[in-house]
Amino acid sequence: MSFDRLIENIKAKQNPTVAGLDPKLDYIPEYIRQAAYEKYGKGLEGAAEALFEFNKGLIDALCDIVPAVKPQAAYYEMYGWYGVRTLEKTIAYAKEKGMFVITDGKRNDIGTTMQAYAKAHLGTTDIEGESVSAFGADALTVNGYLGTDGIKPLLDICKNDDKGIFVLVKTSNPSSGELQDRTLSDGETVYRAMGNMCESWGSEVMGESGYSGVGAVVGATYSEQLGELRAALPHTFFLVPGYGAQGGGAKDIAPAFDENGIGAVINSSRGIMCAWQKEGCAPEEYAQAATREAVRMRDEIVSYIGKIR
Amino acid sequence: MSFDRLIENIKAKQNPTVAGLDPKLDYIPEYIRQAAYEKYGKGLEGAAEALFEFNKGLIDALCDIVPAVKPQAAYYEMYGWYGVRTLEKTIAYAKEKGMFVITDGKRNDIGTTMQAYAKAHLGTTDIEGESVSAFGADALTVNGYLGTDGIKPLLDICKNDDKGIFVLVKTSNPSSGELQDRTLSDGETVYRAMGNMCESWGSEVMGESGYSGVGAVVGATYSEQLGELRAALPHTFFLVPGYGAQGGGAKDIAPAFDENGIGAVINSSRGIMCAWQKEGCAPEEYAQAATREAVRMRDEIVSYIGKIR
Repeated sequence: MSFDRLIENIKAKQNPTVAGLDPKLDYIPEYIRQAAYEKYGKGLEGAAEALFEFNKGLIDALCDIVPAVKPQAAYYEMYGWYGVRTLEKTIAYAKEKGMFVITDGKRNDIGTTMQAYAKAHLGTTDIEGESVSAFGADALTVNGYLGTDGIKPLLDICKNDDKGIFVLVKTSNPSSGELQDRTLSDGETVYRAMGNMCESWGSEVMGESGYSGVGAVVGATYSEQLGELRAALPHTFFLVPGYGAQGGGAKDIAPAFDENGIGAVINSSRGIMCAWQKEGCAPEEYAQAATREAVRMRDEIVSYIGKIR
Repeated sequence: MSFDRLIENIKAKQNPTVAGLDPKLDYIPEYIRQAAYEKYGKGLEGAAEALFEFNKGLIDALCDIVPAVKPQAAYYEMYGWYGVRTLEKTIAYAKEKGMFVITDGKRNDIGTTMQAYAKAHLGTTDIEGESVSAFGADALTVNGYLGTDGIKPLLDICKNDDKGIFVLVKTSNPSSGELQDRTLSDGETVYRAMGNMCESWGSEVMGESGYSGVGAVVGATYSEQLGELRAALPHTFFLVPGYGAQGGGAKDIAPAFDENGIGAVINSSRGIMCAWQKEGCAPEEYAQAATREAVRMRDEIVSYIGKIR
């Protein structure tokens, strides 16, 4: 009913990071792509299988040191239902390896439709009285523009199935301010109003860690707002994108953590997935290069926040 | 690059409505479900096949009188990749029958990730130099909370592939006001600010109809705001949910149209899909009942707006 499981994973590995699995074909070594095309054809199916092979290698290499993965749904939907099958298989494989899985889908809708998303991605689908898990992630990113009607259906599943959600609050992109930074008539910013709603929604699904099952997405590229929101939202756990490729550094994300080094999980996608290209190592070593980058990132962040208690 | 194709369809059929395809198992006649379970098992695959059979019957029954369909992604994702395959097949089938297809996915993200969604749902995916269509809808609903970075990648595809998007502006649900109705420091509401952004984004993808490829979602349950936004956003085409089951009537949605009876497409999902249950007719007649309800709805709306010119 909260992020307690994620926090336990983070403490056990002394690593507050999550590896983004946003696989583009360009990131995948040629030998993996060719093998998949030979077996499944150079089309949506072959591409989707190449993605899965690549992901498996990354998960095997990361599962002992990184507590969580975050597959981004868009990069799977690009390959139609074959790609979505790879998303499903990737989630299952990462869970099998003990990782906490956050599906980055930024889903949003209302009432029974939002309930359908909640069942699809976190809970179970009822088929003539049988409960079947469709995607079965541990957490899902969502967009709160529709208000409580769009969040409430998720809270029941967070409670009953021990799952969590991350609501977009202050996103990492340059134009996030166009709406999010605008000031409301009471002097509050839109992102702060959204953050306050997270804190309020979360009160229904509080964990033993002191953090609720309703987290917030806050970009690494907005260090000041990270600090402001950490102080204002003491029960809201943060998912922080924008580290590395988007320009956020370890110093920028330090304000996201509380005095125990808890309170946030920092995402790196390209940095880890493309480490082999940046290093210039042999393509066959892509997974080891990912490990090296994950360790470097962990050490860099932990040097700012200290031991995670 | 706009909604011109949809508007042509609306004029040809003198019907400004869209049939929502949000199939729940409860809506599907038992004979269809049983046949699917017998062939594909009583699990995700069997359920997904039942959905497709049900949809096909509806599309066959509606394609001559209703210009568009709007499958809601959540109700397909509930059945995992099997369900997503049904979404893909449903889109293809409706297009084959000449219908304009709006995928209701409310997708949102930034940069290359939003580009991946745009390629997935509207454009084509590049696989080693070959362009392959994944879902291939004509339009997609999106959420603009992330600002221009989340919309820009869609505009290129709207332009090049003659597609459209609908941005959430004022949603039909009771709690939509929690954020959307809040007043900004300059006196504007959040939904109006979002509407203004649609008008501005749309200027890049203007159609011959005078409406751009950037539409807005505005709920039938907020008649006053429909009128306000119609006047303020003369180039923004509206997708209007909330008619029927959610409480919006034909009179409430009349302000969404311009003086030519253009400017909006009104969605009905449950009303059409469940017409056979409401009528109490034989389950085998579910598609004919859908036709009867679609005709009733069309006539009711046209009685308020007159001939569509």
